[in-house]
Amino acid sequence: MRVLVLGGDGYLGWPTALHLSDTGDEVGIVDNFLRRRYDDEMGVESLVPIEPLEVRTDVWHDLTGRRIETFVGDLVDAEFLFDVVRRFRPDTIVHFAEQRSAPYSMIDRAHAVHTQHNNVIGNLNLLYAIAEIDPSIHLVKLGTMGEYGTPNIDIEEGWLEIEHKGRRDRVMFPKRPNSFYHLSKVHDSHNIEFACRIWGLRATDLNQGVVYGQQTPQTERDPRLATRFDYDAVFGTVLNRFVIQAVLGEPLTVYGSGGQTRGIIDIRDTVECIRLAAANPAEPGEFRVFNQLTESMSVHEMAKAVSDTFPGIVEVENLENPRVEADQHYYNVVFTGLPSLGLQPHRLSDTLITSLFPVVEQHRERVNHTALSPTVRWRSPSNDLAT
Amino acid sequence: MRVLVLGGDGYLGWPTALHLSDTGDEVGIVDNFLRRRYDDEMGVESLVPIEPLEVRTDVWHDLTGRRIETFVGDLVDAEFLFDVVRRFRPDTIVHFAEQRSAPYSMIDRAHAVHTQHNNVIGNLNLLYAIAEIDPSIHLVKLGTMGEYGTPNIDIEEGWLEIEHKGRRDRVMFPKRPNSFYHLSKVHDSHNIEFACRIWGLRATDLNQGVVYGQQTPQTERDPRLATRFDYDAVFGTVLNRFVIQAVLGEPLTVYGSGGQTRGIIDIRDTVECIRLAAANPAEPGEFRVFNQLTESMSVHEMAKAVSDTFPGIVEVENLENPRVEADQHYYNVVFTGLPSLGLQPHRLSDTLITSLFPVVEQHRERVNHTALSPTVRWRSPSNDLAT
Repeated sequence: MRVLVLGGDGYLGWPTALHLSDTGDEVGIVDNFLRRRYDDEMGVESLVPIEPLEVRTDVWHDLTGRRIETFVGDLVDAEFLFDVVRRFRPDTIVHFAEQRSAPYSMIDRAHAVHTQHNNVIGNLNLLYAIAEIDPSIHLVKLGTMGEYGTPNIDIEEGWLEIEHKGRRDRVMFPKRPNSFYHLSKVHDSHNIEFACRIWGLRATDLNQGVVYGQQTPQTERDPRLATRFDYDAVFGTVLNRFVIQAVLGEPLTVYGSGGQTRGIIDIRDTVECIRLAAANPAEPGEFRVFNQLTESMSVHEMAKAVSDTFPGIVEVENLENPRVEADQHYYNVVFTGLPSLGLQPHRLSDTLITSLFPVVEQHRERVNHTALSPTVRWRSPSNDLAT
Repeated sequence: MRVLVLGGDGYLGWPTALHLSDTGDEVGIVDNFLRRRYDDEMGVESLVPIEPLEVRTDVWHDLTGRRIETFVGDLVDAEFLFDVVRRFRPDTIVHFAEQRSAPYSMIDRAHAVHTQHNNVIGNLNLLYAIAEIDPSIHLVKLGTMGEYGTPNIDIEEGWLEIEHKGRRDRVMFPKRPNSFYHLSKVHDSHNIEFACRIWGLRATDLNQGVVYGQQTPQTERDPRLATRFDYDAVFGTVLNRFVIQAVLGEPLTVYGSGGQTRGIIDIRDTVECIRLAAANPAEPGEFRVFNQLTESMSVHEMAKAVSDTFPGIVEVENLENPRVEADQHYYNVVFTGLPSLGLQPHRLSDTLITSLFPVVEQHRERVNHTALSPTVRWRSPSNDLAT
């Protein structure tokens, strides 16, 4: 299968590209390196050094004999995108290429507009590229569990069978997310569902939980194949950030009471979920949604898991929550789609957490400590980032 | 009350500005004349000639002694928008300033992207302007009944009380619209609800049905105060288009079987709904939704109402539906919010329809007949408009 991975230079896009290449797909990567530029803007770097994309793909070729073709450009540039799709002729397009940080989107107006423009218009261009060039291309789109927010009912997989005043319908699951970033993915989901309906496109929307971990069997083969490991309060996901804070001797910063419950998933399961979705495409006209997580856990429980595992003293600090979100709420997610395709989940284990400690230890001198504290407050429409 | 009407040069924005000015509000208008440029692009004009905005406001001043301040610029230009809000200091902002044609948004990629960019980013800038400058400003936003699509359950006013697996919640009413234009308003609604939640903004989202009619008590006072009257297949709303086709001796073009049922509203009720919403603002933090229609009618029934009223022979032509939409469906809309504020609806009557015939007759020589036929097909991602 020919698979084009959009955002294939990022935290998850890169290991996904390697996993697919390793399992026999012909892989191409599209990226505009925006994620690396956000680092420059924030004054931070990945904790683990990452190589330029061309070095990464060369190393992969040297080790495996497999080529990954690269295309450098922006999905917002329709001419570029159409050209790539025409040249690469993918069977599947995996779309990671969005601004993916909630705090980044909440810095101020310019960052919210950038996020929604970049994500919504890029995705819209992609839908048109598929519709015009080859509607049989299967779109595998990264959504987020954050699209749903925290409703007081079970979270189904994208659709909801409802009864109202004695009548029944199957509707899009109602969304009420907690940032302009998460909203951008809600907008994408609505646009994609419509494109499936009118053009017969086939799409799988993967509403992914919070990813943790940094290594996959492919990235471990050479340090130059490493993927990013973000620790800062803007791009670092919560469990990874706790691991890094523990090793650094910094308090684990829990926002509010830590009662916020989130779906989580191991990076090795993420890449396998993508493979499974690609290998089992949606039907023409189908807007298929999977909830891509393997378990749910409160932020407090995540902090406890890290502090219980770390062989030293760990302090947990409850900060005033900079976000606007419920920290005591119902949370029960249905996620049967990906297991039914064969996913064998890695549950969060001491082993995984322990395996991250030496990674952090090795690169601890690279940390900008001030970047660990949250500086983006949801209640303020304009945050001044002293980076 | 100081009211800023965004899009105040358009079909509904202009009569709304006059109605509010007439009832005692201090009114300002913001417009970038994009609607007039769409005419240039489509090669059509309003059936009824309209004056430049400055002439309109001068005539209004001459007749009433009341001034309407005007600001020419684009909501996508945040600097302009912030400056206007700072200078005018509105109590209420009425937001009509969006690309509002479904067929226009479905022409091709560029038009879909333009529509979502213009509408979503303009609205996002507006939310930030209110949040940063004065969160007590009441936003009255024009949504559309088309946001809902045609669900098989009753359409409630923006929110839905649901029970699922024995648990209850109040959720955003699920949306499944039928064009990239309608989707842009779904995106807006989600963004606005979030802004109310995090910044305590107060907003009223008016999900308006298809508007018909062309005159209000204010616009009738002088021909130079006339508002637009669109007949073309891209910007003409269905009932107005039927009236024009009847007078021209053209067949009324019904798409598909005409079983599509839509909410409709008289232009005189539209302007009064806006006034009522502004006079009775949402609470701080409240995202309030009203369904702004006064009755529901199938397209076939609308054609029949016009042909029954017209004093001559009228042919009805069922065209293959260029859109992708159900033409046999359940449709029952709740609309109690605006009547509870005091709306006294004008139901569609022979009198209203009859009153439009001489308006059309007077300007019939201005019609570009080729513009009456639909040229935008939903199934095609790229439509070539021979204008």
